[in-house]
Amino acid sequence: MPKKIHNIEGVQFGSASSKTRYGDKEDSLVVSLPSSSKLSGKFTSNKLRAAPVELAINNLSVPLKGEKVLLINAGNANAATGPKGLRNVKKYCLEIASDLNLKEENIIPFSTGVIGEALPVENYLSAFRQALGRLKSNNWKKAAEAILTTDTKPKIISKEIKVGKVSYFITGFAKGSGMIRPDFATLLSFVFIDAKLSQSSLNKIHSEAIKVSFEAITVDGDTSPNDSSLLVANGNKEKSVNIGSVDENKISGAVIEIFKELAELLVDDAEGATKKIRVKVVKAKNVEQAKSVAFTIAESSLVKTAMFGSDANWGRILSAIGRDPTVKEINNIEIKLNGQPLVKKGYIDPSYSEKLASKEMKKKEIIIDVKLGSGKEGFEVITSDLSEDYVLINSDYRS
Amino acid sequence: MPKKIHNIEGVQFGSASSKTRYGDKEDSLVVSLPSSSKLSGKFTSNKLRAAPVELAINNLSVPLKGEKVLLINAGNANAATGPKGLRNVKKYCLEIASDLNLKEENIIPFSTGVIGEALPVENYLSAFRQALGRLKSNNWKKAAEAILTTDTKPKIISKEIKVGKVSYFITGFAKGSGMIRPDFATLLSFVFIDAKLSQSSLNKIHSEAIKVSFEAITVDGDTSPNDSSLLVANGNKEKSVNIGSVDENKISGAVIEIFKELAELLVDDAEGATKKIRVKVVKAKNVEQAKSVAFTIAESSLVKTAMFGSDANWGRILSAIGRDPTVKEINNIEIKLNGQPLVKKGYIDPSYSEKLASKEMKKKEIIIDVKLGSGKEGFEVITSDLSEDYVLINSDYRS
Repeated sequence: MPKKIHNIEGVQFGSASSKTRYGDKEDSLVVSLPSSSKLSGKFTSNKLRAAPVELAINNLSVPLKGEKVLLINAGNANAATGPKGLRNVKKYCLEIASDLNLKEENIIPFSTGVIGEALPVENYLSAFRQALGRLKSNNWKKAAEAILTTDTKPKIISKEIKVGKVSYFITGFAKGSGMIRPDFATLLSFVFIDAKLSQSSLNKIHSEAIKVSFEAITVDGDTSPNDSSLLVANGNKEKSVNIGSVDENKISGAVIEIFKELAELLVDDAEGATKKIRVKVVKAKNVEQAKSVAFTIAESSLVKTAMFGSDANWGRILSAIGRDPTVKEINNIEIKLNGQPLVKKGYIDPSYSEKLASKEMKKKEIIIDVKLGSGKEGFEVITSDLSEDYVLINSDYRS
Repeated sequence: MPKKIHNIEGVQFGSASSKTRYGDKEDSLVVSLPSSSKLSGKFTSNKLRAAPVELAINNLSVPLKGEKVLLINAGNANAATGPKGLRNVKKYCLEIASDLNLKEENIIPFSTGVIGEALPVENYLSAFRQALGRLKSNNWKKAAEAILTTDTKPKIISKEIKVGKVSYFITGFAKGSGMIRPDFATLLSFVFIDAKLSQSSLNKIHSEAIKVSFEAITVDGDTSPNDSSLLVANGNKEKSVNIGSVDENKISGAVIEIFKELAELLVDDAEGATKKIRVKVVKAKNVEQAKSVAFTIAESSLVKTAMFGSDANWGRILSAIGRDPTVKEINNIEIKLNGQPLVKKGYIDPSYSEKLASKEMKKKEIIIDVKLGSGKEGFEVITSDLSEDYVLINSDYRS
């Protein structure tokens, strides 16, 4: 949790409980955004798209005028629910639009939870209504908590950047700890900027930030049908940012940092995880190869269980590289683990020390450095280990 | 274990212990093959190839004359061991060739076990020598046991096929219970035919059999650097088989059956497995799509943990299909589980019954039927569930 969470002018949060899956825990969040705000949304690449994702994509396809409201529910993904699922999400959006005298398109829904169960519409609708009566600009912690499912803690990042005399504030939160191999967004992430930015600038910053954050983590290789990332600029006139300006550049850098930090928080809280593993692949033929190899290592069950067991079974890392379809030969490969030499020229490094490597393996943070020796490009992926607890959590998620 | 194990004329087995990783357990197997025998070998597609695999591929690249001897050791994979690993395997092959007055190429090595550790050559060499003194044609059970690592039981299949007055015998055994996503062979498999077959016929039968057996199973998506499958015809002159004959056709059918049964035995004994899951994909655009979707489902950690927990969380199956890169849309998809309807037209089947589906989920054998609705092709993959025990076994394999 950051020491100081900066509010974003005009952005307010309210939460309440639907009293469904999680009992009295607040699981329904409403976010109110000012008329001046601009939104950039990125959604799952899974062809199974949840009903709220369909609707959100549709609503965000044209520039929205006036106040906007985000409705986010946890506990039910409203995915694979067919025409009825779409009717359900439209229903509560329409009711809230009517309550607030807003256009239907200005209500943007997000869901996370179990796939394929009918959504208890009335319960969530009444929770959203209750939440609307509790809007506050400093409700960040409650907001970040209301969207959680199997996560064990809220994930908030907040930054202030100064350019000359102007202070820009950026604050965001995210959720997700399983089914994480986002293809261009994590489960749910919301980041707010206290500035006026053009739509094109906002979209560009969003795309760049996602590429090196949520697209560079994996917990279990599964992509959720509900992945959604929203980047919002509140449109504060006193903080108007020109395209190509130093301010835009600094904001972009800070947004990228925030996305990366949120992505890391997701991995830190990955289901059952006991370790965080950074797989850094360099000297690849191209970025695609670096990414492919990094994900092949990061998603190997054998590598992940060896990490959990603190077993310096580096053969599994090399073997994973060897089966990657982009790799043609392994004779130039070098691997280090937290700086300890494991593999050189494609086989065990003569200076390998089981004792020193084992000592590093016991640490909570592991860096696997891989030099492919086939070019100049690189990519870094962050992942978690595979523990008994991951299996326990996921064999019993619905109960 | 089959009721009757048919011996294969001229083929003999002897085993002994190297007294290394597994204490006194016999872990070293010698197989002696008659001069008349012909061999077809298929090996891993992993670019990390174990030293014995390199040597076996080399030795089998030309037709071998005279007696042949297979040397198989469990406990040490001799993979990622570089030039020294190759020197080590060559050393014991050369010594045994010299003992038996055979050409070096006629000694064919296979290894399975931990990757990247130096092979204790002298220990295995003396075990092989001891095993040579124990050759017997009915030593099948001991042979199948000597090649095991994390497997819990030996895997043997034996068949007799009659064509007219001639009886053909085929007997084989295999090992493997983790790191199983063979790309054209499982860890180790040896099948022997009591007949004389041409080399081309033998190779053809071998390729066909592998495609629908070891290439259609997965435990954890990891491909071993030691995968080797050997099909041997002993060259029995009284059972000479012509190309294109009924006999060849029947033998081919029986070999395919044996390979499939061995592959199933591997999945039955998969590390930590509590269930066997058949993923049958039909109505795909082409076989590649069917295979891709079947493996995406079979390797999804979320699907596998749901199976372990007997949780009819079918949304995970649909979500796995949705992220498969070959799938463009999901509107025609139908899914059934042991005959129970789960998904129709891409979302929850109106006739879905949680109670009935849950009852099926508790069974030890699960069949997932997927209709993609995009064409006419199909593919079937067999896999296991993902249990806490898998994690335990693999976080502690080396100790």
